[in-house]
Amino acid sequence: MCSFMQNRDEKFDIKAVQDFYPDDFSWCYGCGRLNEKGLQIKTRWDDTGTVTEYLPRPEHMAIPGYVYGGLAVSLIDCHSTGTASLALHRRDGHELGDGAPVPRCVTASLKTDFLKPTPLGKPILIRGEIREVGKRKVVVHSELFVEGVLCVRGEVVAVMAPETMMGGA
Amino acid sequence: MCSFMQNRDEKFDIKAVQDFYPDDFSWCYGCGRLNEKGLQIKTRWDDTGTVTEYLPRPEHMAIPGYVYGGLAVSLIDCHSTGTASLALHRRDGHELGDGAPVPRCVTASLKTDFLKPTPLGKPILIRGEIREVGKRKVVVHSELFVEGVLCVRGEVVAVMAPETMMGGA
Repeated sequence: MCSFMQNRDEKFDIKAVQDFYPDDFSWCYGCGRLNEKGLQIKTRWDDTGTVTEYLPRPEHMAIPGYVYGGLAVSLIDCHSTGTASLALHRRDGHELGDGAPVPRCVTASLKTDFLKPTPLGKPILIRGEIREVGKRKVVVHSELFVEGVLCVRGEVVAVMAPETMMGGA
Repeated sequence: MCSFMQNRDEKFDIKAVQDFYPDDFSWCYGCGRLNEKGLQIKTRWDDTGTVTEYLPRPEHMAIPGYVYGGLAVSLIDCHSTGTASLALHRRDGHELGDGAPVPRCVTASLKTDFLKPTPLGKPILIRGEIREVGKRKVVVHSELFVEGVLCVRGEVVAVMAPETMMGGA
């Protein structure tokens, strides 16, 4: 049973990292608060690591009844880069809302294992665990659940966005 | 320089595997021809393996000027499962349009490396190479290019859809 789901109202008071990304970095299809057509996921600290919750749209199917794998990977991807941002921010002595800019991370590599088909129509919960924090690199292990059942597992290497990408913003 | 782009009209006469999936398996957000809100990608044989071409929508951005990583992974995912279907079909002595049902594959695992940021606004080309064909499993190596530049590399293990998933259709 998922404690996050039971304490949803309480947990949702906790700030999401995506709400603190600079405007120029808030257009991401997966997690940008300014991308109206995107998924706009929100990633937060919780007692054991980080969490993201998302309810797939009806069109996000693989075959009827099951979630599209590309969506599952997209959620894991943005959840993991969000987790990496949170990890670097805390490592540097900051918490969301203290005024310090939040580092923006991008994905260097991503590995996912599809353990079970993900049922469609129910909220997805992703939990992130920080495995390694380097100077500019974070390794995140993320797990995707539906009703407490682990469906997809991901390992993401995220790095702070390089200067060359920031020039595009 | 990409020969596929030069010979686009000629290549587009080649049939796409997704046009031969059974209707119940044609709702995938990434490649289902019946999913009107989806990406509807098309995967074809070519001289060296398989190809998929896709022009991202403006909202498919990571940060302004660059393609969302989740989209890149989604394209690689569906391209690779489509490639696996083509490989199993040909292994069994069939070609698209000969009347034999096309096997439908799903992703067991997926690994992607983001080598360079993928520029937005230009057609994406994905090339697939079949590395291993088992009884029900295919290993596909896929590479994503923009204007001939390799941006993302993927390794996908695809398997024929299990009976349990087919019951959901």
